[in-house]
Amino acid sequence: MSENGRKTSRKSGLPPGALIHVGSKKVDHVKVSVIDYNEDIYSEKICEQPSDCFEFKDSETVSWINIDGLHDTEVIAKIGNHFDLHSLTIEDVLNTNHRPKIEEFQNHIFITLKMLGISKNKTGIVHEQVSFILGKNWIISFQEQEGDIFDSIRMRLKERKGIIRDKGADYLFYRLIDTVVDNYFYVTDYISDVSEKLEEKILISPTQESLREIQKLKKQLINLRKITNPLREVVSTIEKDANDLIEESTGPYFRDVYEHIIQINDTIETQRDMASSIMDLYLTGVSNKMNEVMKLLTIIATIFIPLTFIAGIYGMNFEHMPELHWKYGYHIAWGIMILITLIMVIYFKKKKWL
Amino acid sequence: MSENGRKTSRKSGLPPGALIHVGSKKVDHVKVSVIDYNEDIYSEKICEQPSDCFEFKDSETVSWINIDGLHDTEVIAKIGNHFDLHSLTIEDVLNTNHRPKIEEFQNHIFITLKMLGISKNKTGIVHEQVSFILGKNWIISFQEQEGDIFDSIRMRLKERKGIIRDKGADYLFYRLIDTVVDNYFYVTDYISDVSEKLEEKILISPTQESLREIQKLKKQLINLRKITNPLREVVSTIEKDANDLIEESTGPYFRDVYEHIIQINDTIETQRDMASSIMDLYLTGVSNKMNEVMKLLTIIATIFIPLTFIAGIYGMNFEHMPELHWKYGYHIAWGIMILITLIMVIYFKKKKWL
Amino acid sequence: MSENGRKTSRKSGLPPGALIHVGSKKVDHVKVSVIDYNEDIYSEKICEQPSDCFEFKDSETVSWINIDGLHDTEVIAKIGNHFDLHSLTIEDVLNTNHRPKIEEFQNHIFITLKMLGISKNKTGIVHEQVSFILGKNWIISFQEQEGDIFDSIRMRLKERKGIIRDKGADYLFYRLIDTVVDNYFYVTDYISDVSEKLEEKILISPTQESLREIQKLKKQLINLRKITNPLREVVSTIEKDANDLIEESTGPYFRDVYEHIIQINDTIETQRDMASSIMDLYLTGVSNKMNEVMKLLTIIATIFIPLTFIAGIYGMNFEHMPELHWKYGYHIAWGIMILITLIMVIYFKKKKWL
Amino acid sequence: MSENGRKTSRKSGLPPGALIHVGSKKVDHVKVSVIDYNEDIYSEKICEQPSDCFEFKDSETVSWINIDGLHDTEVIAKIGNHFDLHSLTIEDVLNTNHRPKIEEFQNHIFITLKMLGISKNKTGIVHEQVSFILGKNWIISFQEQEGDIFDSIRMRLKERKGIIRDKGADYLFYRLIDTVVDNYFYVTDYISDVSEKLEEKILISPTQESLREIQKLKKQLINLRKITNPLREVVSTIEKDANDLIEESTGPYFRDVYEHIIQINDTIETQRDMASSIMDLYLTGVSNKMNEVMKLLTIIATIFIPLTFIAGIYGMNFEHMPELHWKYGYHIAWGIMILITLIMVIYFKKKKWL
Amino acid sequence: MSENGRKTSRKSGLPPGALIHVGSKKVDHVKVSVIDYNEDIYSEKICEQPSDCFEFKDSETVSWINIDGLHDTEVIAKIGNHFDLHSLTIEDVLNTNHRPKIEEFQNHIFITLKMLGISKNKTGIVHEQVSFILGKNWIISFQEQEGDIFDSIRMRLKERKGIIRDKGADYLFYRLIDTVVDNYFYVTDYISDVSEKLEEKILISPTQESLREIQKLKKQLINLRKITNPLREVVSTIEKDANDLIEESTGPYFRDVYEHIIQINDTIETQRDMASSIMDLYLTGVSNKMNEVMKLLTIIATIFIPLTFIAGIYGMNFEHMPELHWKYGYHIAWGIMILITLIMVIYFKKKKWL
Repeated sequence: MSENGRKTSRKSGLPPGALIHVGSKKVDHVKVSVIDYNEDIYSEKICEQPSDCFEFKDSETVSWINIDGLHDTEVIAKIGNHFDLHSLTIEDVLNTNHRPKIEEFQNHIFITLKMLGISKNKTGIVHEQVSFILGKNWIISFQEQEGDIFDSIRMRLKERKGIIRDKGADYLFYRLIDTVVDNYFYVTDYISDVSEKLEEKILISPTQESLREIQKLKKQLINLRKITNPLREVVSTIEKDANDLIEESTGPYFRDVYEHIIQINDTIETQRDMASSIMDLYLTGVSNKMNEVMKLLTIIATIFIPLTFIAGIYGMNFEHMPELHWKYGYHIAWGIMILITLIMVIYFKKKKWL
Repeated sequence: MSENGRKTSRKSGLPPGALIHVGSKKVDHVKVSVIDYNEDIYSEKICEQPSDCFEFKDSETVSWINIDGLHDTEVIAKIGNHFDLHSLTIEDVLNTNHRPKIEEFQNHIFITLKMLGISKNKTGIVHEQVSFILGKNWIISFQEQEGDIFDSIRMRLKERKGIIRDKGADYLFYRLIDTVVDNYFYVTDYISDVSEKLEEKILISPTQESLREIQKLKKQLINLRKITNPLREVVSTIEKDANDLIEESTGPYFRDVYEHIIQINDTIETQRDMASSIMDLYLTGVSNKMNEVMKLLTIIATIFIPLTFIAGIYGMNFEHMPELHWKYGYHIAWGIMILITLIMVIYFKKKKWL
Repeated sequence: MSENGRKTSRKSGLPPGALIHVGSKKVDHVKVSVIDYNEDIYSEKICEQPSDCFEFKDSETVSWINIDGLHDTEVIAKIGNHFDLHSLTIEDVLNTNHRPKIEEFQNHIFITLKMLGISKNKTGIVHEQVSFILGKNWIISFQEQEGDIFDSIRMRLKERKGIIRDKGADYLFYRLIDTVVDNYFYVTDYISDVSEKLEEKILISPTQESLREIQKLKKQLINLRKITNPLREVVSTIEKDANDLIEESTGPYFRDVYEHIIQINDTIETQRDMASSIMDLYLTGVSNKMNEVMKLLTIIATIFIPLTFIAGIYGMNFEHMPELHWKYGYHIAWGIMILITLIMVIYFKKKKWL
Repeated sequence: MSENGRKTSRKSGLPPGALIHVGSKKVDHVKVSVIDYNEDIYSEKICEQPSDCFEFKDSETVSWINIDGLHDTEVIAKIGNHFDLHSLTIEDVLNTNHRPKIEEFQNHIFITLKMLGISKNKTGIVHEQVSFILGKNWIISFQEQEGDIFDSIRMRLKERKGIIRDKGADYLFYRLIDTVVDNYFYVTDYISDVSEKLEEKILISPTQESLREIQKLKKQLINLRKITNPLREVVSTIEKDANDLIEESTGPYFRDVYEHIIQINDTIETQRDMASSIMDLYLTGVSNKMNEVMKLLTIIATIFIPLTFIAGIYGMNFEHMPELHWKYGYHIAWGIMILITLIMVIYFKKKKWL
Repeated sequence: MSENGRKTSRKSGLPPGALIHVGSKKVDHVKVSVIDYNEDIYSEKICEQPSDCFEFKDSETVSWINIDGLHDTEVIAKIGNHFDLHSLTIEDVLNTNHRPKIEEFQNHIFITLKMLGISKNKTGIVHEQVSFILGKNWIISFQEQEGDIFDSIRMRLKERKGIIRDKGADYLFYRLIDTVVDNYFYVTDYISDVSEKLEEKILISPTQESLREIQKLKKQLINLRKITNPLREVVSTIEKDANDLIEESTGPYFRDVYEHIIQINDTIETQRDMASSIMDLYLTGVSNKMNEVMKLLTIIATIFIPLTFIAGIYGMNFEHMPELHWKYGYHIAWGIMILITLIMVIYFKKKKWL
């Protein structure tokens, strides 16, 4: 998974159908695996050749073809051609910098979105592009690398838990998207935690380091929003456009996913407000620290400058300075200086600077 | 009631129908009570078993089934199944971190929202999730714990005050929602009070403490908005979508609730403006305080630094310094110093720094 | 008229029809007066009893029933019942904290809005709620207290000036709303004046007092917006919804009112921009003042600190200090000090600090 | 032309048809002139009496009646009555503080907008209200004073240049509006120039004067936006609403005007962004200047305060101070002081403060 | 290519059809070249006279007429007339300051947009206006100067790569627009790079220079947005409005272009957020630097001012100062001064100022 997907190096000038994998190569070998099931039967298969999965296109059973690794464009192209995918769809699958989108065709629905996770050292958010194509009785999923968050679905399919085996490909489609979206909550929780700790830290003491952390938090939120915001429209499109591929009874489930996305977007917006608020706190903290410094300077300076002046007076070398000859002159000078100090201290106390 | 509902721990990967109570357990025992009435009869009943309330589903009379406590998912599931609730509805009832929403089904309307209140020590806002399901002649309400704000409705039902006993379940549905929404006004009044006091306090003297209070106020407003903003759409949906379950004559009442929600949202937006405004005040106050400090420093320093310089001059040990031998040298030096002081004071008076 | 209408104390838990006057009692006695007219006849009447005005409901002539004072809920209720007003309408009339709204019923249109004015000492904006109900051939107006801005309408009715006597109740309805809205221009002019003076004042010298005035201005604008913003939709609703009660030829007049409201809202938005702009000016002014203070300190300190150092050098008591014994040592010291001062002054001149 | 059109003194309480000229009187005499033309004939005429232009209402030729001066309401009223204008239209013509608007009637279209220009001393933007009424074969234009920007149109009409003589009144209507809108580009160019110069000036040195200029720029932009923003809807209305008075072939021309207005509004928004950006620059410049002041103070003070302390030490009068009696004590003291100075200078160099 | 296209010098008062080239002359000679092809044939031709390309209007083959240079309005006008272009279209082609727009006519679609690139010294963004007109079987493209980004399309046409030769003029139209839009990604990548480097630089040390760079970045983003934002609507219009000139099968391709534009606009918005964020960083950095300066001043001053006072005390010339005569007076004085210094240092350590 990449921590930064900013660059959008497009293959300018090339035709739309030119299949080039945009992104870094992440696995050695493209792995194609199939899970095929209906109410009664269940089978798993790993395809050595892309063509090994062609049979599942027209089978009566529901087939989930999962492809890990996107760098071998030839494999992808072969599968794409067999399953009648539009050339632009295949291009979008291969471009891992694409924003989430949905494309509805005559015989399939194409969706691309991002799986999100926390990096292993817990310091950042990682994301991986995943694309789903829903056809009649089959789903093809494309992932950048092996290892995903769908194991619980596989387990439930295998062990026939719940209603998943009784339902069609559209329900599996929902379950896959729902799993991806549910995982976003971990990320928003993580962000909330980070932001809360940061706030607490800054309220105690704002440091240069916290500035970097605020900056990082802001960027994460901006990137997150770019990932989750378009999803709203994507899922809303599935839900609203009545479609041959999606049964009416699956509709409420997509509405549920939609609600979750709204909630995630809400949280992200809230966190953005929080981040500005934390920046304000930081600035105020810095400014308060400066005030403290200025106060100390002012207290020391306003007490000692007049005293030093008095000492300076009686350090003058005029021949005729009567006070110098007084017996208690020195003590009187001290007295005056102590008096001035007291007055100053009382003044500062009154001003609540001490 | 919980003061903080930020965490949205979802049961990722589990199927949508998996009934798990998300939230802290707040009562020991799930309590199911029924109020059953029509124009003529009225009865109250506490159900030992969930099944004790099943009879009310098809009765001619209006039945209000109230369930306090959400942790016993089995009880909820039993009731849900009997009343033909969608599995996602039951899931939403159990997830107390859900944002307010409405879901319309063939035979029931599901609404979930938050009851708001002021915490007992008057320092914060507490909220509790409440869900209402309106069916043909029955309403089921789910609350997180015992004790609510509906006692006046119960009393009016019992004593047959007003028109409530003459109307159907949809009118009761309205009255329940209206009561929840009306209670929000206490919270917005509370927020207005807090913000007004804070402003007054900061205009007098901005302290580090006030910064924390502004921060808290802002957070409360952000959270409030998350609760009240979606409500607009919820009530608007009830009002607009003509529905078999809601009689036309009840429409204007929901429009009235809608107006109140608009007003609450308005107030929250206004308070958000106010909060920014108070933050500005705080910053300005801090900056003004700093100016005062700087002014004092400048006054003291600009008066005494030149004087000290003069004293320094006549503290020099040159052999040939004629002034030192003048008879009134010392007095002239004092004279010059007093003159400088006077000029400075006049200058500061003119600049209005004194 | 109340200067502050923030509190929205609702009678939570009570049924919608419960008639309670929300707001302070402003007149001793509820006064009901009727103006009845058509092209030919004109009569005025003050009703001792509410029932005295019942006859005007079904008369052929146009009747304007004006009610001053809202605290006697019984009187209001009686009239409401006779004129077939919805219970929620009467509730809204009595709640003087309501935001402007329109409600269309089968046989009447209900509108509630605020009359605005400048307080007598010219320091604030006062407002009073006024509600109009337009029926077939009659209008009922509810005001919080006696004395209003409609005297010119009454005069024109009485003296048969213009076309008002030739037109129906819908034209009177327009004239009443138009008069209220036109009065808003006085308030926006007042606000513009205040803001302009404030800006001028702050450009000259920003004081702590100006901060309070900016804060007040901002609040006034926020409150104004809450009053005028919903009006847009209110008048637009009258204009658009073709209605039995409003003749087509009156439409352009309401469109004219609509334009005025847009203009008022525009002005308020502009003034909000201005208020932020003035706040910026204030902050910049404060910051400039501080710079001036710092500059003075720096000039004095950087000139005298080196001089004092030189004086300090020759105040040392080393036995072997050749300069002390030079004949012109003292004069050379002075020379050096004057030189340093000159260099400093030239430097400051170049930096434009002097 | 007035430089400030803020005040919106309305004639509150008066009926809508009461004709009162709101604005300052700008010409002595209302001047009514007519240009009458078709493909073949062309004539100009100055009407002594309003009634002199009545004949052009029903003539077959296209007539452009131009009225300079709005203070003689009687003249305006006579013309208005003859041409069947709605009383509200005439009122809007006379109120020179009106925002741009369009009003479509059965037999005429009314448009009011502002001509913009740069004041003669190039320091501000001036505006004058102009209203156009398009009827069947005639256009009436109302201007506040003589002298306008339509001379090139008159010339082209007279000399039969281009297609204008071949087209109807709707095309003339377009050309008039287009000329007004095209003139706005001069104003946006002027604003862009001012803002660019201001930015350059502030990047060099931010002065109190620049603050006033930013403030003025902001106000100009706010006022401009109030003038150009409503125009979008105005022209869009002409373009969209198919109308008997406007031929279909003229549609694309109005679409072109619409595009220009969009572009003008875009530029104004951009300039508003720029203005905030310049304000930021100003604030940063002021803050940078202050930092420079502080740095100088710090450098001088941190170098000389320790030196003065050392001088102070050896200015003490203790009997037993061995250093005072050293032969090279004085030179050693100087050595130490020079050393301290060097260390400081190196430190400041490293910190890049020197 | 011009780096600044702000000025919008319009030819005010002239009629819409007056052909005047607005913009600087960029090539000596207008060059008209034609590529003509279908599945089987391919030919290139450079037209000496505008009329040389007239034959391609009604040919069966697809013809791409490219015109480099806009200053010779006569040539443009001739071509425009022959191809039945609306006079406003030709005006828009010639005005190189136009914002991107689409205009649909009976027999042709007109689009104008900007090609973007990085200037050769890599310090700015350059743009050139390009207009496309799609007719039946022909496309006319207008560019400001020779040399463009379409060479790969020409090569593919010539060498018959891909499907481009099998498709009609609408597909070529798509490919041209797509190539322009794809090039924008280079610019957004460039902007992202610049902004990232700037952020890094400012986090290390904020200089006056960085302020200029932020300002430049902001302006570039504002200008970019003006170019890319209207494009959204332009492409969306092509995609949505079913049109005789665009085959249904080309629709998805335009949808793909639309997605790219959305992504570009997203990136620009993100970069605008980043730019504000960088400005915040700059301000904070400046403020932190100032704090450091103040801290140093305070540390030096608060340590040495009291010490200098003590030295001043014992520099007084009172006759009766017992300490002066103590044997270890001098050493005690030093002791006290060292003690004070230690206390101060510990205090500063505790405050984390050292």
